[in-house]
Amino acid sequence: MTDRRGLLIILSSPSGAGKSTLSKRLLEWDPSLRFSVSATTRAPRPGEVDGKDYHFMAEEQFKHDVIEGQMLEHAHVFGNFYGSPMAPVQAAIEAGRDVLFDIDWQGAQQISNSVLRDFVLSVFVLPPSIAELRRRLESRGQDSAEVIAKRMQKSWDEISHWDGYDYVLVNDDLDQSFEKLRTIVTAERLRRAQQPGLLDHVRNLQKEFEEISA
Amino acid sequence: MTDRRGLLIILSSPSGAGKSTLSKRLLEWDPSLRFSVSATTRAPRPGEVDGKDYHFMAEEQFKHDVIEGQMLEHAHVFGNFYGSPMAPVQAAIEAGRDVLFDIDWQGAQQISNSVLRDFVLSVFVLPPSIAELRRRLESRGQDSAEVIAKRMQKSWDEISHWDGYDYVLVNDDLDQSFEKLRTIVTAERLRRAQQPGLLDHVRNLQKEFEEISA
Repeated sequence: MTDRRGLLIILSSPSGAGKSTLSKRLLEWDPSLRFSVSATTRAPRPGEVDGKDYHFMAEEQFKHDVIEGQMLEHAHVFGNFYGSPMAPVQAAIEAGRDVLFDIDWQGAQQISNSVLRDFVLSVFVLPPSIAELRRRLESRGQDSAEVIAKRMQKSWDEISHWDGYDYVLVNDDLDQSFEKLRTIVTAERLRRAQQPGLLDHVRNLQKEFEEISA
Repeated sequence: MTDRRGLLIILSSPSGAGKSTLSKRLLEWDPSLRFSVSATTRAPRPGEVDGKDYHFMAEEQFKHDVIEGQMLEHAHVFGNFYGSPMAPVQAAIEAGRDVLFDIDWQGAQQISNSVLRDFVLSVFVLPPSIAELRRRLESRGQDSAEVIAKRMQKSWDEISHWDGYDYVLVNDDLDQSFEKLRTIVTAERLRRAQQPGLLDHVRNLQKEFEEISA
């Protein structure tokens, strides 16, 4: 048994609130962190790498895995299935490694109610304002006005589920938000439930007591 | 409403594991922290100050407060009553101030099951070994061999309840343990449930959405 059990770290936010940057920084800060790569039944787009961008799967296999409880969460979007495979997450946390999930509120809720719920740490990132959210989406310069309008609509749905998370950060300042996120992860690793190695320590204390009493 | 709701920070450990030193450092680190002064029905000892060492109370008043739900926890020890009055704790956490409790496992369990349970952060401090625990008790040079033997006996009872706490620290090194404790408190203050001010922020975001849609 390792000293520590890994956490399932869930980061959610509307598009543009800073979730991807915070994820990237977290992975740079602690290279032992694993990023959960989603599975999907949609066809790979040019440049997408299997196992890195997605685990590309046949629909039959995907459905089989769902029924067998091998997907921590899954959704059906525009005719394609998406999900988070259980096996790599279970292997990582048993080896004492945290797994990072960059997912929306539906996925977060499913994982928070899954068999691994006791190891979930969920964080929601709110924008300082909607005007700022829009500004960030526009300043990327990579999306059409139509795509941005669609993202803005979707962001209300996402924000309205902020109250299902353990922690909430208002991302006014990226450095400060990252510092808070790092503090949260560092603290949550110290939870009793995350430290199965403590039991050995308490057993040793008990042995010492017995020797004194003998 | 304040932006933040205070926490009930419970520190427990066997005598000699470092709880008092960690409490003292925590209070120095953040002077806004309030220390919960216990109430008792026993007579003041020479030098003890009412309201600082204890709130000295008549037994009738104490029992009345217990029945009225005005004690967060209480116990009857060697013919005297001891307890943690609710009112100052409630006032502090509503004003956004954390309250620190230096209590044993029975008190910790009662507070963790009280009406304020959602705001409890409980931390248990384990010694690195029983030999080290004894060494620390002896090196204080203030207690007789008999008192130390009694404390050692009581410490088993205390340690055996380590698994009822949110966080557990093995106090090998006081500086490191304090750093961990500080990280835990800083993180727990960021919990959604501790930040009632977030609701106003989300209401403002909602208003902005309405103006955009109008």
